[in-house]
Parts: sequence; C-alpha cells; structure tokens
Amino acid sequence: MGLVMFEKILIANRGEIASRIIRSCKRLGVRTVAVYSEADSNGLFVEEADEAYLIGKPPVKESYLNMEKILEIAKESGAEAVHPGYGLMSENPEFALKTKEAGFVFIGPTSDVMGMMGDKIAARKEMTAAGVPVIPGTEEAVADAEEAKRIAEDFGYPVMLKASAGGGGIGMQAVYSPEELEKAFEGNQKRAASFFGNGTMFLEKVIEEPRHIEIQVLADAHGNAVHLFERECSIQRRHQKVVEEAPSPVLTEKTRQKMGEAALKAVRALGYENAGTIEFLVDDDENFYFLEMNTRLQVEHPVTEEITGVDLVEQQLRVASGERLELTQEELEINGHAIEVRIYAEDPDNFFPSPGKITEARFPEGEGIRLESAVHGTSEVTPFYDPMIAKLITTGKDRNEAIERMKEALESFHIEGIKTNIPMLEKVVSHEKFKDGETKTSFVEKYYKGGR
Amino acid sequence: MGLVMFEKILIANRGEIASRIIRSCKRLGVRTVAVYSEADSNGLFVEEADEAYLIGKPPVKESYLNMEKILEIAKESGAEAVHPGYGLMSENPEFALKTKEAGFVFIGPTSDVMGMMGDKIAARKEMTAAGVPVIPGTEEAVADAEEAKRIAEDFGYPVMLKASAGGGGIGMQAVYSPEELEKAFEGNQKRAASFFGNGTMFLEKVIEEPRHIEIQVLADAHGNAVHLFERECSIQRRHQKVVEEAPSPVLTEKTRQKMGEAALKAVRALGYENAGTIEFLVDDDENFYFLEMNTRLQVEHPVTEEITGVDLVEQQLRVASGERLELTQEELEINGHAIEVRIYAEDPDNFFPSPGKITEARFPEGEGIRLESAVHGTSEVTPFYDPMIAKLITTGKDRNEAIERMKEALESFHIEGIKTNIPMLEKVVSHEKFKDGETKTSFVEKYYKGGR
Repeated sequence: MGLVMFEKILIANRGEIASRIIRSCKRLGVRTVAVYSEADSNGLFVEEADEAYLIGKPPVKESYLNMEKILEIAKESGAEAVHPGYGLMSENPEFALKTKEAGFVFIGPTSDVMGMMGDKIAARKEMTAAGVPVIPGTEEAVADAEEAKRIAEDFGYPVMLKASAGGGGIGMQAVYSPEELEKAFEGNQKRAASFFGNGTMFLEKVIEEPRHIEIQVLADAHGNAVHLFERECSIQRRHQKVVEEAPSPVLTEKTRQKMGEAALKAVRALGYENAGTIEFLVDDDENFYFLEMNTRLQVEHPVTEEITGVDLVEQQLRVASGERLELTQEELEINGHAIEVRIYAEDPDNFFPSPGKITEARFPEGEGIRLESAVHGTSEVTPFYDPMIAKLITTGKDRNEAIERMKEALESFHIEGIKTNIPMLEKVVSHEKFKDGETKTSFVEKYYKGGR
Repeated sequence: MGLVMFEKILIANRGEIASRIIRSCKRLGVRTVAVYSEADSNGLFVEEADEAYLIGKPPVKESYLNMEKILEIAKESGAEAVHPGYGLMSENPEFALKTKEAGFVFIGPTSDVMGMMGDKIAARKEMTAAGVPVIPGTEEAVADAEEAKRIAEDFGYPVMLKASAGGGGIGMQAVYSPEELEKAFEGNQKRAASFFGNGTMFLEKVIEEPRHIEIQVLADAHGNAVHLFERECSIQRRHQKVVEEAPSPVLTEKTRQKMGEAALKAVRALGYENAGTIEFLVDDDENFYFLEMNTRLQVEHPVTEEITGVDLVEQQLRVASGERLELTQEELEINGHAIEVRIYAEDPDNFFPSPGKITEARFPEGEGIRLESAVHGTSEVTPFYDPMIAKLITTGKDRNEAIERMKEALESFHIEGIKTNIPMLEKVVSHEKFKDGETKTSFVEKYYKGGR
C-alpha cells in the first residue's frame, strides 16, 4: 500500500456500479480493468474500462463470484487494487482476505471487521460495547422456543424473530403473541439452516413503524474519520429499498448530530477503514437503534454525494491507497436535498421481474437530474442479475424541489419493451404522505395498492 | 399581473431552451403552450408541452418571429404570460411591448429598458451615468473617419471600430494605425447600414487579451435585486461563446464583490426587472469594463444555477408574476464549480455547420453531469436553426474536478451520422493553458489549431 494513488485497479463487479467506479477512476487518472460474464459482453462498463476480461458464464457463481479467476486477472493485468462495488463479493471477508494475500489492496475495510459486521450477533455485541444504542434484544443465540418466549415476555410483544445469518428477509418474522412465537420459531430456524447453513436465531423488540435512517462514514488508515450525515431509506418493499433521500425529511439537527457521533464511535471502536454505512431504525420520538453496518459502498450513495459534494468512490480510492482523509467534520455541510429511486425491470402490480429487450429508451435530463443507468439504448435486461435498469437521482434547494423534479423526471422516463416499476415510483413520490415526510418503512404496504 | 403564479404560459421559442422552461413550469404546476414550425414537429419540446401549436414553415421569419401569430395562439390557448427564451424575439422590444399590449405578461424586462440596452451607445451612456465603469470610448456617434482618427489618437491604438446596432461581430474591427482606421471606417459603416439598417459607428479602446466575465442579476418589480456572482465565458470562437464556467478561475473575492456591486448599480439605475446579465471585459489587473447587458436568460445560465442552487427560470416566472424576490444577497453563496460546453453539429476543422441525421447517440451520465439536449436518439439536425445539439454541464467541488468530469463526459459522448465540435471541446478542456485558467478571449485563436 503506497502513499500515491493507484495506477490501475480491477473492478470485481458489473453494471451501473462498475460504470460509476470507472468514472471516478478516469477523473483521477487511474486505469481500470473490468471483468465480465458472457451475458455482459455488450455491457457499457466493458466498453468504458481500459481493459476487460471475460471470466465465465452468467450464473454469478461461474463468473462474478469466481475469486481465483478474478484475482488471476488482477495479476495478469497488473492491477494494484480491487474494488468490489456493492453486492456480489463486496461483503465477503474471504474475498477481502484472499485479495490481500494475493498482494492487492482491497478497496474496503479489513476482512476481520467485515466478517464481524456480517455476523449480526457479533455486530450487536461490538456496538453495545462501543456505546452505540441497539434495539433491545438477545445478546446470545436463543436456544429454543421456550427460551424465546421467556425473553419476549420481558421485551413485550411484538418481537421479531431473526436468523443470525439472514438477509433479504429470510428467517425473519414478527410475532405478536406467545402462541405465534411457539409456532414460528422452529420453522424459521429450519429455513435459516437450510438457506444459510446456520440456524442460529435471535429475538428483538419490534420498533413499530420505524424509519430506516443510515449514516455514511469515511475513515482512513491513520485514525481519521468523518460522517457524511444521514440517508433516509424507509421506503422499501419486501425489505428492499426503493426510494432513498438525504437529508431525512424529519430528523432534527440534534438527533442528526447524535447519530453522527454514534456512527463515529462505532468506526473508532472497530478501527474501521474506508467507506461504510451504519444503519439505524428510528422511532417517532427519534430514539435510534443500530440495525447493521454495511461495509461497502451503498446503492444509494449518490444522494450523499449530491448534498455534500463529496465523491465517495474517489474517497474510497484515496484512503485505500494510504492517503490521509482530507475532509474534516467541520467543513462538511448539507447543501440542498437529494432523492434517489431505483428503476427496476419489474411488473408494478406484483413486483415480478420483467426481463427482456428494451425496444426504446429515453432518459430524463436537465437541471437537478443525475442518472446512473445499467443499460443503454436498446439493450437486453437479462434474467441473470438484479433487474435494476437505472438509478435516478434528483436534487433541489429543498425537499419539495427535489420531489417536483423527481415527478417530472419519472414522467419523461420512457422505457418500452419491458415492464418497469416507474408507475409505482410515480405513485410513491406523488403521494400526499410522501410529501408530508411520512416515510415510514410501512409506506408501500400502507399506501401502495399496485396498478398504474 | 397578479400576485399568484401563472396557470399557463406560452413559450415563444424552441429546442433545448423550450424544454428547459417546460421543466421548471411543470415543477411549479404551470401549464405550458409550445409553438413550433413544420421543421420541429418531432421536437422534444413539442411533446413535452401541455399544448402545442403549429405556427408556420421553417424560416424563422415565417414561424418563430411571427409576433401576431404567436400572440394569437397565446390568446386562443388562454396563456397568461409569454416566455421568450433566448435568441429569436427575446431581446426584441417590439415583441415585449406587443405582448404587454395584447394583455399578457412578458417574462422579461420592460420594452423600454430592453430597447435602451439593445442600443449600445444608449447603454453606455446609461452605465456611465450609473457609475458603472465602461471601456474608454466615444459617448457619441462618430461622424466620419477624420473624427475617428482624432479620437483614436487620444485613446491610443489599438482601437475597436464598432457598429452601434451590431451583433455577432458584424461591423466590428480592431485597427492598429491611423492608416488602417482610415480604410476600415467606411467599409464597416456601409456593412452595418446594410445589415442592420443603421450605420452609426463608435470607437473603443481595445483591452488586449481580455477575459469575458458576466454577472447574473435578478430583480423583482418591488425594487429588490440580487446578483448571482459571475460566469467566465472567455473561450469563444468568432465572438460566439463555446465554454463557460462559474466561478471565474481567476477573479479575486474583492473584484467579484466590486463587479457584483457595479451590476446592482446598473439594475437600480435602469429600474430593471426579471433576470439579466451584465457582461464585462476584464483585463490582467482585474480592471473591468461594461460591455453590454443581455436582457434575457443566457444560454450559459446553468453554470450559475449549479453553483448557487437557484433555478433561474423559476425566479423569472416568480418575479414576472409579481412576487417579491425571496433570495437575499447575504444568503447567496458559491458552492463548487461548474463548466458548460456547447455541443454543435459542426466540422471541428473549419467550424462549418454539419446538419443531418443522427444515426446513433449516447449521452454521458452520472455524478456531476447535467445535460440539456436539443435532440433525442436518432433525430435530425436541420439546417434551419442554430446547430446546437446539446449543452453539457459538469460540476465538481472545485474547478479541477469539474474539468476532469468534463473530459470524461466528452469522451463518453457519442454522436454518429454528423460531425460535431466534440473533438475541439476535448482539446480545449484538456489543454494545459485551460487548466491553468489562462482562459482569455484569445484562447481558441492562440491554442486551437483544428483537427482531431
């Protein structure tokens, strides 16, 4: 790890995030190596990178998750570092470790910290020790339904049953009574065991209708760290974020500061390096509770970039190359408001993926509009990957301006040939409750009935 | 003129600026009426407007300059106001007056002020009286070559010979000696008389290798006015701006303030209303001299919007509807840096227009990129209008970041089927002298040799 910027890095990812990383690299004069599967041979990122190598067939296991092959190409191409993007192997401690052992810089935190944050129980313990508020819940694995019921009695119902290794909602269930808990425990334990190979369960108090608010952090290898305020990502469907914004429409300045300080406590306790995000649940009284830490760049990072003027990918590269963080907490400030929506190839009525060939595409443009698309002109949305077509970010001097721009931008967004969630997004951002900032995690369930 | 926002306005323009105005209107809930010529029937703005009316054939005289027809449509459609955009009739006092007389609000200054600023000699007199520095030059029309030579002796050579009614360089010539002046005077006078129907000439001291720096102002009908800092537009070819940026790469804070104050003096002296731009020439010692005032929105307005967060079109509508300016000078501040380039359908070697069918187009996107295009997908650049394809604006936390983003964005800008000036723009923004901020008006002439 040198004190000068890398000359060449490999991007172990695809689609819009690969393009995103390439853009910052070009600006910094860093050469880029792309790896791609057969299904992505016409991908924009393949064309944009300075070099590109075919690594295998579409199932991710045979291409984007093939560590050995990717590190072999890193060696062959003379790359000095590997950027994992988000998803895929970005939070795989084994990949981070193997990358380092093969002599490359992994652009992210160390594998130890990553591993610890990937284990929900370990993460909770670490946060509790660091003085970061956590949701009242079990510190240890819950052995069986009987123990679960005793604990739930203590917390008060409803409580959430969770699988330690879970993700995307698998192994998760809210229960409202001892009877329900009795029935649910074993089923979820089995499901988690079969999905993740790990049936460890724990229990949490349910924060009713919370908001999902996360704090972006950046830390270097020299002990310097800053937070870049919050993103509110409460609008989700099936635990997947759909609309994200910064700043939150409701957070008071006092809570913002407290949450930022809590996030920095976590960073210091972990000796965390690079960019990361600490997710919190926030209740109506602005009590906040640690949810999890994402040890990588987030899909929704652009909204933070828009309100702070900081290029997060650039900062990731800088700190990974050994540079000291030049940003100070004092000089960081929020300017205006930014909203991101994720545009998916999916049926707005039932959320089923809708892959296929895009026969016509016209993207919005103009003041306050930032687009990051994974497709171009008339390309194919394959069934192999996340069906995200684009991220659309609008900014404004205030939230209202950003919302109005989003409505207008969605209206002028034309995709033909496949179904998209644009009608759903239009309904969400035009909803009176959205305007009012009533962006709880229950939003879609409560206010979106499907249809156009 | 009421105190509530308009319900519907007519846009007496075309192309990207019509689209630009429509976007702000939609956000404000104002309905829009487009007028279009036969050549623009597939134009994006026609589709985007709430209503659109065909007004005639392509030569602008038979369509976009047809005042009667346009005002008739304003009446028919129930519009309350007319936005003239830039170019076309935007600085035509007769149109402003007729619009008002027909019972509509003209979104711009009064015809009196517009007329005064359109006459260079009257404008100079007005500015001198207001205490705004002007370039040493004649206050009165210069009768003949003999008088011109006496005055030039006084100023010292070189001096500039200018037609009072001139524009775009017609009737303008720098002369370096009495002999040259003798020869040039009559020719330019004749040319101006035949082009503009007005052969009135005047003389100015030449500011050698000046910068072109302009101040954006906004004023309401209640005597409130602010300036929105400067734009540097020195990079020109044949007196047409090509690259514009804000803030200027060289201006000191002290000069910035002085220029802003001078611009506000002008606004107050004129009783100016709506958005306007005061153009200055600035020499190496930061002496600045009034050049002219543009009584309309500028092509390059986006760079100011990017660094201030103010939507200038929205402000135009607000003040035209009678609202008081909500912005105060104290709260306005510069955030980051923005650069705009104008992408033209022209041969980069000889600057000849290159109209034709675009067979493939791919636009840049991502962080710090704003695009305002006049074309879509595979449309036609007709020979009838200004061959501008798009304005590309990049922003960054500082000038270097905006430049690097611009280089990257231009590289990923693909237009096939016609020639564009992209290779020229790439050379300009990649030039060492551009990076150094050596952006004098002589830039293209000195550093650009053509070719790719």
